[in-house]
Amino acid sequence: MSYRAPIREMRFYLDSVLGAHRLARTDRYAEATPDTADAVLAEAARLAEDVLAPLNRAGDLHPAHLENGVVRTSPGFADGYRAIADGGWVGIAGDPRWGGMGLPMTLTSCVNEMLGSACLSLSLCPLLTQGQIEALEHHADDALRDLFLPKLNSGEWTGTMNLTEPQAGSDVGALRSRAEPNGDGTYAVSGQKIYISWGDHDLAGNVCHMVLARLPDGAPGTRGISLFMVPKYLPDDAGRPGPANALSVVSLEHKMGLHGSPTAVMQFDGATGWLVGPPHGGMAAMFTMMNNARLGVGVEGLSQAEAAYQKALAYALERRQGRPPVAGGTGTILDHADVRRMLMTMKAQTAMARAICLDCALSLDMARAGQGDDWQARGALLTPIAKAFGTDTGCRVAELGVQVHGGMGFIEETGAAQFYRDVRVTAIYEGTNGIQAMDLVARKLMDGGTAARALLAEAGTTAERAAAAQPELSAGLSAAVDALSDTLDTVLAMPDLNDRFAGAAPFLRGFALVLGGHYLLKAALAEDARLPLARFAVRQMLPEVPALCAAARAGAADLYALDADALAV
Amino acid sequence: MSYRAPIREMRFYLDSVLGAHRLARTDRYAEATPDTADAVLAEAARLAEDVLAPLNRAGDLHPAHLENGVVRTSPGFADGYRAIADGGWVGIAGDPRWGGMGLPMTLTSCVNEMLGSACLSLSLCPLLTQGQIEALEHHADDALRDLFLPKLNSGEWTGTMNLTEPQAGSDVGALRSRAEPNGDGTYAVSGQKIYISWGDHDLAGNVCHMVLARLPDGAPGTRGISLFMVPKYLPDDAGRPGPANALSVVSLEHKMGLHGSPTAVMQFDGATGWLVGPPHGGMAAMFTMMNNARLGVGVEGLSQAEAAYQKALAYALERRQGRPPVAGGTGTILDHADVRRMLMTMKAQTAMARAICLDCALSLDMARAGQGDDWQARGALLTPIAKAFGTDTGCRVAELGVQVHGGMGFIEETGAAQFYRDVRVTAIYEGTNGIQAMDLVARKLMDGGTAARALLAEAGTTAERAAAAQPELSAGLSAAVDALSDTLDTVLAMPDLNDRFAGAAPFLRGFALVLGGHYLLKAALAEDARLPLARFAVRQMLPEVPALCAAARAGAADLYALDADALAV
Repeated sequence: MSYRAPIREMRFYLDSVLGAHRLARTDRYAEATPDTADAVLAEAARLAEDVLAPLNRAGDLHPAHLENGVVRTSPGFADGYRAIADGGWVGIAGDPRWGGMGLPMTLTSCVNEMLGSACLSLSLCPLLTQGQIEALEHHADDALRDLFLPKLNSGEWTGTMNLTEPQAGSDVGALRSRAEPNGDGTYAVSGQKIYISWGDHDLAGNVCHMVLARLPDGAPGTRGISLFMVPKYLPDDAGRPGPANALSVVSLEHKMGLHGSPTAVMQFDGATGWLVGPPHGGMAAMFTMMNNARLGVGVEGLSQAEAAYQKALAYALERRQGRPPVAGGTGTILDHADVRRMLMTMKAQTAMARAICLDCALSLDMARAGQGDDWQARGALLTPIAKAFGTDTGCRVAELGVQVHGGMGFIEETGAAQFYRDVRVTAIYEGTNGIQAMDLVARKLMDGGTAARALLAEAGTTAERAAAAQPELSAGLSAAVDALSDTLDTVLAMPDLNDRFAGAAPFLRGFALVLGGHYLLKAALAEDARLPLARFAVRQMLPEVPALCAAARAGAADLYALDADALAV
Repeated sequence: MSYRAPIREMRFYLDSVLGAHRLARTDRYAEATPDTADAVLAEAARLAEDVLAPLNRAGDLHPAHLENGVVRTSPGFADGYRAIADGGWVGIAGDPRWGGMGLPMTLTSCVNEMLGSACLSLSLCPLLTQGQIEALEHHADDALRDLFLPKLNSGEWTGTMNLTEPQAGSDVGALRSRAEPNGDGTYAVSGQKIYISWGDHDLAGNVCHMVLARLPDGAPGTRGISLFMVPKYLPDDAGRPGPANALSVVSLEHKMGLHGSPTAVMQFDGATGWLVGPPHGGMAAMFTMMNNARLGVGVEGLSQAEAAYQKALAYALERRQGRPPVAGGTGTILDHADVRRMLMTMKAQTAMARAICLDCALSLDMARAGQGDDWQARGALLTPIAKAFGTDTGCRVAELGVQVHGGMGFIEETGAAQFYRDVRVTAIYEGTNGIQAMDLVARKLMDGGTAARALLAEAGTTAERAAAAQPELSAGLSAAVDALSDTLDTVLAMPDLNDRFAGAAPFLRGFALVLGGHYLLKAALAEDARLPLARFAVRQMLPEVPALCAAARAGAADLYALDADALAV
């Protein structure tokens, strides 16, 4: 059993649930026609299935390692990376002016899901480059863009993000790396950065580090941070990599998963860098990159859910155990109700996560295509939900995948355990899921709840549309929408922001389930064969929404009623 | 930060919530006085904290491995095991007639929790021996008991359980191992067994395998299975290990966790064995052993929850990040509401799991002490709940522990990831949690729900007792009890057992949450300082019960509405 890219599923959600055809009507994405989409998805599917999926276990078994200061990647990763770059997949989202394909995020998200399902650890390398491409397009000057973007889009060079320092994780403003002007327009960047994914490797000719650091006159906190491009090898004006820059890999982390993706501690010792964007404007530039990276990480979670589901279903269909408890069954453990429950839960959550991620991508695409601020607000609201629910779904589905395998799930050869280990960090990096939830209830509700109410109204419309044909499901979705709408009002009325934060995580999950129920029911209205999954979701998953709302409304007091000593008892 | 055994917590639940003092009033456990309990727990705590906890990471880093057909254990494990054996901890539950300490399960569960929290992989070795001691006490003849039990109780020899074969996992009745009479009262046992924990090692003088196999006249299925004692070295009449038996370790599994615990594929090639219990009575004997093993595995899950919670709390108390969002805080991430939510969730679930496991243990002890069939039924009902909820709690709390650690949670050096990996199998082995749930709704409701209703009535009584002082919490618990009682009636009225099975897992979880809320509220009524945790549990966790009930009542049809092809789309 190997990975099969769910192209039809993607196309169905894009076309029949989310209305992605609207993109091709915009000037910016006029070329993103259904035919183009078909061709892109089919080609990416072949790459994922045939070239990348066979590398996943090798990456796990033979981690990237440090050899005389240079990172050596896992067996086969060099060939895999070359296939990604040669196919043009690194630059899929890049501006065509610098060699990118200029595809909308709705399509790049589908592509990245496939590459992630096939081999998440390797797929992170081009994904990080995509984030850097975007930051350079938006914030770098022409000289930098002309120098770096063609190499990054082609995959000849790769990109990294250098934010975190030991004392500055979620609190980026605490960072201490500094940059001194060299007097020639460049800067000398010094400091130590941790958790640098693909911080070094042997796959490409240069590694381009985007580094957050403070200029001498930079204020404390996030307002005094600037962004620098600090390549491993300093290129000449023609873009030929020249002398090595003053930076090095101190060590690689020994991680629970993603062994194929080297996670470096990077040391910059007066390394030459170029300012990207204005002085002290680093956080704004970084946020451009991070927002889309958050959707990208949500898609990473989704990718592991899809892969774990496929593997578990394949195992259930081949494992014979016990007498068939139902007549006319398959004779395998798929006949058992509890195995069915696990698989239905996995499938429903995966479908929900995909719809949320793709709707987020579509909204951001429409905003970029100049279709109005509402799309921008919609995409901004959906981003933390896509990140947190996508990655939570990855974790939960991978866990159920292990469980479906029984004892074999704990044995590494099976592969189910690798998904479970690999996906776990997606709930942590790029802003922990707790931070996503705080973003949702604070920043993303600063419009007084307008964007949130608009999305809930869409869900309400789906419930109305279903009223005649599926009254029970219509009522179930309506009840969940109402519970969440009431909770939204309660949350908005909280005068103390910490009361919102206290219920942020359950609020986000409740929101995601309501949206998920809405998408699945909409899918069922479009295609009868999808009714069973919608029925399962509405009848057996949406009842969780009132429980989540209770926690979302409860306020902070209960959480602080035990002091540190009492917690330790 | 290292592990601290939660002795006070255990004593509080035993004394003030569960009424374990009743045990010392029975003849059988008259010696289990509070003073004895104090001494036992304090001594076990020292062993766990000082000797075993330091071994846990070594076991993970340096797995047990096969060397010329013999298993070599992780560094330090031999010393750790010797300390366990020398302290008399292997035989804590054993009958004093053969050198055991004869302690009740309420105390042995506390001891095993501590040893498991400290080093789960090593603790499994004596735990398996304890299961074998119990099976021999109940089912072996005097000669076998006299020969094996003293050595097992002293820890000089260790025990294993050999049930599973490649084609016979959850479906034990499909096993193919066979036993031929040798004519001298012994049998020649042949077959291959998999997933044999501590199937071989270098810690003790003999490894005693309890093997399920079929006699020549054994019927197909579980009715034709017999149990055999098949030691690695054949002892002479004086109990001196002699010639090697015809058995071998084929290989060790490469597992996601529990690296310190060797999991063997065992081959028996006409190995000499002694029948334990009557011919074809193997399943009954095995069930004796398995039932208590199920509680033991629930305690394993609990042990990882406790250890993961302690580690996460310690990390939260030292990690400074971001501006304090609350006045008068600790200046650490403990000040953040979402971190608080995670820690409160971890603490509440761990307390619930401990109370459920200990109440199960107490019930089984009271039954053994001849206090009546009601106790037996109560313990039998609580067993699958203790196993599944204890291990689910272990998995969930360990996952939250990783999340509290942020990026550090994914780095192996931290130790949070090890709990997450180690604990995962506890939800699978000794009957998957899905099988536990099926046991609960089928076999354990065969009394028409009498035992279940009695437990729910206890929870209702707690709600009533709280009505005056804590009306909101009383109402919250009452509502959950009512929802579950109604669901119990619905489940009992289902004519098709597969409809019960379809909702078994959510029913079990709902039952566990109701019991957990009941214990926590009872604890709060006994000690004011415990009110905040009870408030959190009732207000923010029990609202999940109606959602679980909805799934428990939904029946099987929704789960089978997609056929195998549709599931694969």
